[in-house]
Amino acid sequence: MTTASQPRNVLLVTAHPEPSSLTAALSSFAVDHLRAAGHRVRVSDLYAMKWRAVLDADDFPDHPADHRLEILSAQGEATRAGRLSPDIAAEQEKLLWSDAVILQFPLWWFSVPAILKGWIDRVFTFEFAHGPSVPPPYTEGALAGRRALLATTTGAGGPAFSDRGAHGRLADVLHPLQHGLFWFTGLAPLEPFAVHGAKDLSAHAFAAAREEYGRRLDGLFTDEPIPYRTLNGGDYDRSMRLLPGIEPEGTAGLDIHLRSR
Amino acid sequence: MTTASQPRNVLLVTAHPEPSSLTAALSSFAVDHLRAAGHRVRVSDLYAMKWRAVLDADDFPDHPADHRLEILSAQGEATRAGRLSPDIAAEQEKLLWSDAVILQFPLWWFSVPAILKGWIDRVFTFEFAHGPSVPPPYTEGALAGRRALLATTTGAGGPAFSDRGAHGRLADVLHPLQHGLFWFTGLAPLEPFAVHGAKDLSAHAFAAAREEYGRRLDGLFTDEPIPYRTLNGGDYDRSMRLLPGIEPEGTAGLDIHLRSR
Repeated sequence: MTTASQPRNVLLVTAHPEPSSLTAALSSFAVDHLRAAGHRVRVSDLYAMKWRAVLDADDFPDHPADHRLEILSAQGEATRAGRLSPDIAAEQEKLLWSDAVILQFPLWWFSVPAILKGWIDRVFTFEFAHGPSVPPPYTEGALAGRRALLATTTGAGGPAFSDRGAHGRLADVLHPLQHGLFWFTGLAPLEPFAVHGAKDLSAHAFAAAREEYGRRLDGLFTDEPIPYRTLNGGDYDRSMRLLPGIEPEGTAGLDIHLRSR
Repeated sequence: MTTASQPRNVLLVTAHPEPSSLTAALSSFAVDHLRAAGHRVRVSDLYAMKWRAVLDADDFPDHPADHRLEILSAQGEATRAGRLSPDIAAEQEKLLWSDAVILQFPLWWFSVPAILKGWIDRVFTFEFAHGPSVPPPYTEGALAGRRALLATTTGAGGPAFSDRGAHGRLADVLHPLQHGLFWFTGLAPLEPFAVHGAKDLSAHAFAAAREEYGRRLDGLFTDEPIPYRTLNGGDYDRSMRLLPGIEPEGTAGLDIHLRSR
């Protein structure tokens, strides 16, 4: 048996209010496809779970109601003590169980829906996802050894998200997630999978999208992740700036944080 | 009286769960400073309002519970009919009243907190913020004639968000908001105002940040907005790609969408 066909653990997080949406259809397809390949899949369907989106003092049951809420401290203390709100603890357990994480969502205002942002805000706590108790960010990272895939749908067509597209290159629009969330916490991000023109997708285009998604899921553990630079690999100074000579001064664009181009 | 000192209407949207947070302090400062300059200010304090972050069918009171929720259609119908959930309608009224919008927030995972993303997702509805009933995106836009300022705080220091910083240049990290939300809907975005190293800000650094914020607020109606290209200004083709010759092929980075550099 090759490495590619070893059964692995996949967490799929999906976020759309309509159970018959394109997002839901793609999520179901992914679950079936991954299970058919022998993988174990767990699903966090945030709308179905009525996931609480808003980070507040209720995340920390031990936090005294009359105390000032300093979020990093409260997250750190509750995380180390195993005293986070149970809904958060359950998601952290799924992340630790996983070998790969897929976020399936419609691109709303060039980012994730609020319910999914709330999953990120609340679950990726200080001392779980980053902080002195876990391996340092940008390569080792708290969640290192896992892969991560953004699977999104956009109303606009692909050209608007191309290198010269008015919406910005999809890789740049998704940089806060790919580099800021995944890579920062040690998750190895793959190229995003995007279905464009999602408003009026023909049956033919939907079939093509599923086929392409299937190929991407087949490569979940074998495709080359995006080659972001490591923070401690000798490319950055102590203030987290690229050292002189690593890229020509004046080079523009987020691609300067790739190891090779 | 100069244009700069004309009283104008400012909507400040602020998002932090702790009433004594740096975010809250900066919001209070901004409100006082703007009022002292003669402006009218309204505040949407999302945590204090217990703003509902999650877009779902409840946004559309007329939507039949047993009907498939197609979000753009539901938003468009409810917006045109004046039948959006009252909390959304109230925020839209504030936006239309405003001459400038300020979003004050801590940068969580390289974006806005979920509660603020939920304000964006739910308030910027189809046929209010974009759609066939309102002026086209990227310059005219539904909300044209207004200015917009992101005022944020980051844990990391400024160098990590500089042109060569590991977190990505702040302008690139905030592009989904500056260009994708503001510019798309016609709001003229100003350079973001950011307080870095916000975790352990000294009294001295806080005073300096307030002073700088004061200068930025003084320029709210006079500073030059970011010179993004217009979609219908002859720079893009019908598929929303920059035309050949507008920028050299292979130029990297989101700055290709600026008129002049």
